[in-house]
Amino acid sequence: MNIALDMMGGDFAPEELVKGVRDYTSENTAALISLIGDEQLLLPLLEQYKVPPASFKLIPSTEVIGMNEHPLKALKGKPNSSIAIGFHLLSIGKVDAFISAGNTGAMLIGSLYTIKPIEGILRPTIGTIVPMENGSQGFMLDVGANADCKAEHLNQFATLGSLYAQYIYGIENPRVGLINIGEEEGKGNVLAQTTYPLMKENKDINFVGNVEGRDVFLDKADVLVCEGFTGNVILKLAESIHGIMERQNIHTEYFDRFNFEEYGGTPVLGVNKPVIIGHGISRAKAYKNMLLLAQKMIETKLLEKMATAFKA
Amino acid sequence: MNIALDMMGGDFAPEELVKGVRDYTSENTAALISLIGDEQLLLPLLEQYKVPPASFKLIPSTEVIGMNEHPLKALKGKPNSSIAIGFHLLSIGKVDAFISAGNTGAMLIGSLYTIKPIEGILRPTIGTIVPMENGSQGFMLDVGANADCKAEHLNQFATLGSLYAQYIYGIENPRVGLINIGEEEGKGNVLAQTTYPLMKENKDINFVGNVEGRDVFLDKADVLVCEGFTGNVILKLAESIHGIMERQNIHTEYFDRFNFEEYGGTPVLGVNKPVIIGHGISRAKAYKNMLLLAQKMIETKLLEKMATAFKA
Repeated sequence: MNIALDMMGGDFAPEELVKGVRDYTSENTAALISLIGDEQLLLPLLEQYKVPPASFKLIPSTEVIGMNEHPLKALKGKPNSSIAIGFHLLSIGKVDAFISAGNTGAMLIGSLYTIKPIEGILRPTIGTIVPMENGSQGFMLDVGANADCKAEHLNQFATLGSLYAQYIYGIENPRVGLINIGEEEGKGNVLAQTTYPLMKENKDINFVGNVEGRDVFLDKADVLVCEGFTGNVILKLAESIHGIMERQNIHTEYFDRFNFEEYGGTPVLGVNKPVIIGHGISRAKAYKNMLLLAQKMIETKLLEKMATAFKA
Repeated sequence: MNIALDMMGGDFAPEELVKGVRDYTSENTAALISLIGDEQLLLPLLEQYKVPPASFKLIPSTEVIGMNEHPLKALKGKPNSSIAIGFHLLSIGKVDAFISAGNTGAMLIGSLYTIKPIEGILRPTIGTIVPMENGSQGFMLDVGANADCKAEHLNQFATLGSLYAQYIYGIENPRVGLINIGEEEGKGNVLAQTTYPLMKENKDINFVGNVEGRDVFLDKADVLVCEGFTGNVILKLAESIHGIMERQNIHTEYFDRFNFEEYGGTPVLGVNKPVIIGHGISRAKAYKNMLLLAQKMIETKLLEKMATAFKA
């Protein structure tokens, strides 16, 4: 397999990326990594960190899309940027997955317009790991790609998240919950009220009902479904709790798992090929984890399972 | 002043209420407390805890609205319940404020239909204190009374929250922020996008822009405005973080302030008289704090300020 990595994206590019590639390749030989970036910058670093030449292939890029550039304009105007090249290689099948911690908007736009949604998917989505108090891990989606949703969207997120939890986390028959502000059916806002019956009828998931804010971290469900506004607020709130704890020098095994930077990126689910968007502040460990996630998405044929689930 | 307290509501009624009244009256003489409840139950407890007879007046009630009863049906069907009596006394001016930790739905319904919204208010709202990392305190609203909102509602919450922060927390010219999933104007879901310009134009508030999930606890604003779905999820998530910390035996000055039970209740803002809804699991300290809050709402003439703000 061949995984493309945007070496120019993220706050600590390219050095932390090179270190992440070294750490990944020192333990894994399954994938050839296509490193997209400025050769002049990368070659000395690859040598310095002793990344084995057989483990990667350099793909030169001459442009970079900045973190604050307008995503659509940048993608169109910079065809030689690392992100544009990555999507091109993925779309023509030269690579099997694409990872970037660069401009999030450009990554979403590229996923939607170059890789395109799986047939039947209304809205591709992004999710995040949720560290549970009991040590297990859940998956929450959407976390920001879809700020406004309809019930049909959430119901599709439920199926996508369930397949992700099953194949990536190895959870048999994952419990899927709807994030809501009440326990019983009929509670919540109009979106939650109309989503509940759809999820209840969804034969592709094991629906366990509503999950309130107080139960998000209590392992009431393996997959937590919500629109991207609520999901993004929850994710960033959890990140900030971790930040406050860092500043107060509180470390516990559980709350250290709130360091979302380490998990690597969030997969874009519902598009035809594996795309992973990294956190801007990713460091070596996160890049290594993103490479591992891409490998797992390819090995488990996750996207084929998703395509099958949405076949009419 | 005369503050009515529902002695039959809450998980630890009536004993913890009697203790709360004792603690309040031992330090404060400004208010006479009207204790609404079952005399047979209350008299021995009031004696046991030595509540000074001059500080309270017993108002007998013969019915109780259960925590899971249908709010509207219960209020209509149980006119001799402690909640129905409390709202009646408040509506005819026999008391100046009403506090209950009983059925939340009945408390909201009673506020809306017996006490009624301030003229010009589209939707009364409930809020919560937000403990800030730097030691200060903010106020977030709505936290669950209004799961679906329009921009006009949020803009009114902003004004109500600003007055509350000013008069109850003593914050001069409170900074008011809109909870959102991006920093700049134009970001977020449709509701946030349409609310932003209204809040920017609102001359009764000091609008400071969007506040992301990661900044909720970082004192970027004194008043945090959102619809009740997001607000409820945030509040319950924060409560659960405190619960996890308790179980992990982590105590710090900051995170101990996540013990929302101690704050007492949430005021119903936007109705004509002071109403405070207590947390079901309130104990003596919370009841004392609710009595103090009611006293402050009366002393500062908060509701008159609100009525003035919404006068055309």
